Amino acid sequence: MKRVQLLILLVRKGAIGRKIKITLRELAGELGTSPQSVLRLIEEMEEEGLVEREVVGRKTCVEVSPEGLAFLENLCDAISEALYNGVILGEVISGIGEGAYYVKQYSHLIKEYLGFDPYPGTLNVRVLFPKTVFDALCGVRPVILPGFTKEGRTFGDVKAYRVRIDGMEGAIVIPSRTVHPPKIAEIVAPVYLRKELGLKDGSRVRVEVVRE
Amino acid sequence: MKRVQLLILLVRKGAIGRKIKITLRELAGELGTSPQSVLRLIEEMEEEGLVEREVVGRKTCVEVSPEGLAFLENLCDAISEALYNGVILGEVISGIGEGAYYVKQYSHLIKEYLGFDPYPGTLNVRVLFPKTVFDALCGVRPVILPGFTKEGRTFGDVKAYRVRIDGMEGAIVIPSRTVHPPKIAEIVAPVYLRKELGLKDGSRVRVEVVRE
Repeated sequence: MKRVQLLILLVRKGAIGRKIKITLRELAGELGTSPQSVLRLIEEMEEEGLVEREVVGRKTCVEVSPEGLAFLENLCDAISEALYNGVILGEVISGIGEGAYYVKQYSHLIKEYLGFDPYPGTLNVRVLFPKTVFDALCGVRPVILPGFTKEGRTFGDVKAYRVRIDGMEGAIVIPSRTVHPPKIAEIVAPVYLRKELGLKDGSRVRVEVVRE
Repeated sequence: MKRVQLLILLVRKGAIGRKIKITLRELAGELGTSPQSVLRLIEEMEEEGLVEREVVGRKTCVEVSPEGLAFLENLCDAISEALYNGVILGEVISGIGEGAYYVKQYSHLIKEYLGFDPYPGTLNVRVLFPKTVFDALCGVRPVILPGFTKEGRTFGDVKAYRVRIDGMEGAIVIPSRTVHPPKIAEIVAPVYLRKELGLKDGSRVRVEVVRE
């Protein structure tokens, strides 16, 4: 980890595309290690091609090499691809009771576009991982339930993402104008999930987004 | 690095929100190390709270803990924040000669919105870092040069991002309908940058996006 931390630190100090003057003591302080360890680390990383170094008199100047930058980019890509792969961990919470009303209004569209008759209510899940529901859904194409007007009221488009929750079929629904912060996922399903899965407020659930 | 790699590997195998059965030999093969080292690593990481482990008879089941997931998320965030901070590295290339024509058409808007009379031509930079020009510009708000119609021709909106290139003032301009792939940055400036900075095809440049 120390080499990743040192690379991040050097990038933050501006050592991209140019060499910057460093002092071992300062870097050591920020990494919580000794100046000797920092020197050894920089020498190793220079040998591996991750940094370029120039010593002029008593001054040391360092730059993160193109290979060093690619190393960090690839590491970050590998983490995001693994993490944001459509798995959501959360805990069951109570909704504000509006779910049932809206599910009834959209039930014909849920039937038509998702293929099931929805139980009149939603399961509300507070997202614990990833940081927001959007992080988990980015890159997944939603099913759009098109908006409509009924008795003078306008119902907007709703994005639906098919999911499996502890093995049961369902869908996360996100109104285009939502009152929910991105930490809440609202799930519709053909069954009463609380009863079928024995869930109550605080129960942990694992939701897997189904890619079409 | 081995612990980061092992965490990524476990996440990719689905050890999020549930324990999965692992074999030391298989993990060791994928990490290029020995089963003994993997066992030691998992024991260390269990102690640090990054993974949770359950041994049932000869089976070992492992899950990345919420702390382990947060560790990976934070590492990825730290890398992106450091890397995608408005620095672009690239090399000068020749354009297709259309730059001068368009700069002339938009010159009154460049004067009005960016505050300089542009040299009639653009400096074309092939982006070497980050992967695309958009990675470097994400999170930066552009100055919009509004589209207009002239002699029956339509000129669309252009996004402009103020930059400094080797100390000189300029702006990256991105037409709303661009023919350039995201690997090319087109730069306008009050001076002829090639001459002022002594640049030729293949010269390396460091472009810093100026946040307003």
